Amino acid sequence: MSGALLTDLYQLTMLQAYLEEEMHGTAVFELFVRKLPAGRNFLVAAGLEQALDYLENLSFRDEELAWLREQGGFSKRLIDYLGDFRFRGSVHAMAEGTVFFADEPILRVTAPLPEAQLVESRLLNIIHFQTVIASKAARMVLVAPDALLVDFGMRRAHGSEAALLAARAAYLVGFGGTATVEAGRRFGIPLFGTMAHSYVQAHDSERAAFEAFLRAWPKRSTLLVDTYDTEAGVAKAIDLAPRLGREGISLGAVRLDSGDLAVHARRVRGMLDRAGLREVTIFASGSLDEKRIAALLAEGAPLDGFGIGTALDTSSDVPALDAVYKMQSYAGVARRKRSEGKATWPGIKQVCRSLAPDGTIASDVIQLEGEPVVGQALLELQMRDGRRTTPAPLLSQLRADHARALRALPPGLRGLPRPRRAYRCEISPKLRELAQEVDKATP
Amino acid sequence: MSGALLTDLYQLTMLQAYLEEEMHGTAVFELFVRKLPAGRNFLVAAGLEQALDYLENLSFRDEELAWLREQGGFSKRLIDYLGDFRFRGSVHAMAEGTVFFADEPILRVTAPLPEAQLVESRLLNIIHFQTVIASKAARMVLVAPDALLVDFGMRRAHGSEAALLAARAAYLVGFGGTATVEAGRRFGIPLFGTMAHSYVQAHDSERAAFEAFLRAWPKRSTLLVDTYDTEAGVAKAIDLAPRLGREGISLGAVRLDSGDLAVHARRVRGMLDRAGLREVTIFASGSLDEKRIAALLAEGAPLDGFGIGTALDTSSDVPALDAVYKMQSYAGVARRKRSEGKATWPGIKQVCRSLAPDGTIASDVIQLEGEPVVGQALLELQMRDGRRTTPAPLLSQLRADHARALRALPPGLRGLPRPRRAYRCEISPKLRELAQEVDKATP
Repeated sequence: MSGALLTDLYQLTMLQAYLEEEMHGTAVFELFVRKLPAGRNFLVAAGLEQALDYLENLSFRDEELAWLREQGGFSKRLIDYLGDFRFRGSVHAMAEGTVFFADEPILRVTAPLPEAQLVESRLLNIIHFQTVIASKAARMVLVAPDALLVDFGMRRAHGSEAALLAARAAYLVGFGGTATVEAGRRFGIPLFGTMAHSYVQAHDSERAAFEAFLRAWPKRSTLLVDTYDTEAGVAKAIDLAPRLGREGISLGAVRLDSGDLAVHARRVRGMLDRAGLREVTIFASGSLDEKRIAALLAEGAPLDGFGIGTALDTSSDVPALDAVYKMQSYAGVARRKRSEGKATWPGIKQVCRSLAPDGTIASDVIQLEGEPVVGQALLELQMRDGRRTTPAPLLSQLRADHARALRALPPGLRGLPRPRRAYRCEISPKLRELAQEVDKATP
Repeated sequence: MSGALLTDLYQLTMLQAYLEEEMHGTAVFELFVRKLPAGRNFLVAAGLEQALDYLENLSFRDEELAWLREQGGFSKRLIDYLGDFRFRGSVHAMAEGTVFFADEPILRVTAPLPEAQLVESRLLNIIHFQTVIASKAARMVLVAPDALLVDFGMRRAHGSEAALLAARAAYLVGFGGTATVEAGRRFGIPLFGTMAHSYVQAHDSERAAFEAFLRAWPKRSTLLVDTYDTEAGVAKAIDLAPRLGREGISLGAVRLDSGDLAVHARRVRGMLDRAGLREVTIFASGSLDEKRIAALLAEGAPLDGFGIGTALDTSSDVPALDAVYKMQSYAGVARRKRSEGKATWPGIKQVCRSLAPDGTIASDVIQLEGEPVVGQALLELQMRDGRRTTPAPLLSQLRADHARALRALPPGLRGLPRPRRAYRCEISPKLRELAQEVDKATP
């Protein structure tokens, strides 16, 4: 769906002017989130892999250049430049799965001005979305660390790419898998899914539907039991189990999708246990989010897994973050936007994280690149001269690393409510000084 | 980004069972929204064009089939079936841009059960998203019917497809254009955009930036004036205007992006007018949505246009609708899901709309297909035997039709607040009877 013209028009109009002015000096842009929304105590960086892919492969096809020519207004110089375009800059970034906070750059691009400018729109589009989803999904993982969490959100994700990348971002932060087949194929994410209500409805009876399905999928399948009446559905499943069991067909789980899930789960657990089906698990779905899951588990609902759709794939309470990509330096001079309420920290920056003796995050300092590093410097070189410096990490490795990152969260940030004391990162004195100098110098 | 495996796993597991059971009877599924969220007084159907494209072109590539084979578990019968798959069903749907309400089917698929089932996930993914955006954008058009509205949301849209289709859905309901270049190329949507703050920052002075930009784009360009101080920026633009005007270079507009937009707009309008630049328009952007725009216009802020980003492209207050695709009939027998709180109206349905003498919507009736039509039947045949029945309409034609549809909104539904009396569509007595019969018949 993308292509090089997936960008804002102003990138092209600015480029045309930059080329006229021969402004090819080195620019440094940083991508960061201006503030944490209510409802997020921390954020999780995600999407770097797709961002690096984009930068490595960005080029203009002949038909795109021809279309630009037809529009009139774009100069031959611009179109020739775009025809030869390859991104040849450097990228520093936090590893995917890193926990971060407001104002901390998560990605930095260093390149000749037109190159660094052109990539703004799509870089934000890629990294913003996966960061939104990873940050939402991490809250779900924190409230249900022992449950199987599965992404069910494709149908209400915002288009195809959102569906695929939401599955990826959720898996990165600890989801067990997704229902979206193409996400399984493309990213190696485990797939889950069995039947819809329509399957039951298409049969003359629910019992016939269950039996036919278990015969077609004899190994530990899940039956959806609430099409007509949850407990009556479970009774039919229990009734079928011994007979089919003798043929080597096993029931793996039942899925509840409506009504009071805690009440149904308790009744269903009791029914299954009394029937000797202790190994059959109970999976819940239907308008779930982290608050609902936390409430169900707090009530002691015997639920083993959750399918989460809309709230995950659209991050429905916070569908967007205040993510921006700002020029911090051009031609060796630090720059700063001073617009009311939107001022940024100037200069090329680094984020240093110190851990407490128990391994949790003690403090973050945003400082100028080149200041002494205390703790870990979070922005690492990822791309030089337009090429990745290391092979793409495996998603499974990123997932393991993220699990450690979540364990390093200070306890006050692990819950769903806003912490009494929001996490504040420090600004180094040298960075404050630079901001004052830049303000004095800018007309 | 899509491909035939952009679907939920359960579609494939169900298909495997349907093939084993030789269940190829005709199924009818309807796509509808279960209820209107707070914050939406009506919805606007959108995405049909992309849905029909999907159905016409759906097929499995060799590498997708090979991957399914590798997974184990999928039967040869299923994989052979998918290898030959083409959608050969019929589609009835409301025209894009049609206003609709809860429970009204906006699209109906009639096809052999496996075909109608397989397409569920992606059909919802396509139609849900554009309907979300069109319904949001229509609210913006209603509050600012005389202003130029431009989609600025690509960077925070949920991925590439969301960015492109948000631009399309917004244009469909009356936006003037988009900043997303590829949406302009693909859908013929007018493009807007000039400069970012980085352009100003990259220059040694704001004045130098303005002059260079106007020389590169001499015809009615827009200058972004708030990088450092809005009124000081406008003063520089005013200062440059006469000199550049003598060279045939004209200023078209100034863009405000921060601070109190109403206050700045009044000051800036005064400055421009006193300088004799009455034809220079003022364009606003920055965290805008329909409420903010309505408030600015109610205050009398002299703003001629608005660039709307995040709130539009993510429909941030309502990022998802309760859109579903439900089996209503199989093998000639009406079906109904009865799950608690999620029961549906069974059978094959039509929506009939009657207009009042002044041309506004008087009533909608949801009835069974075949009942006498009073007023206009909104669901029309769009596809037969897997092929469109008519050529794809032009987006510009759909846009004109939608403008008429908005004018037909009852006055009570045109405002932003919830109307005192929500619009209720009627259910025909025959449909109510059928629901009772189906409940009696289902075990």
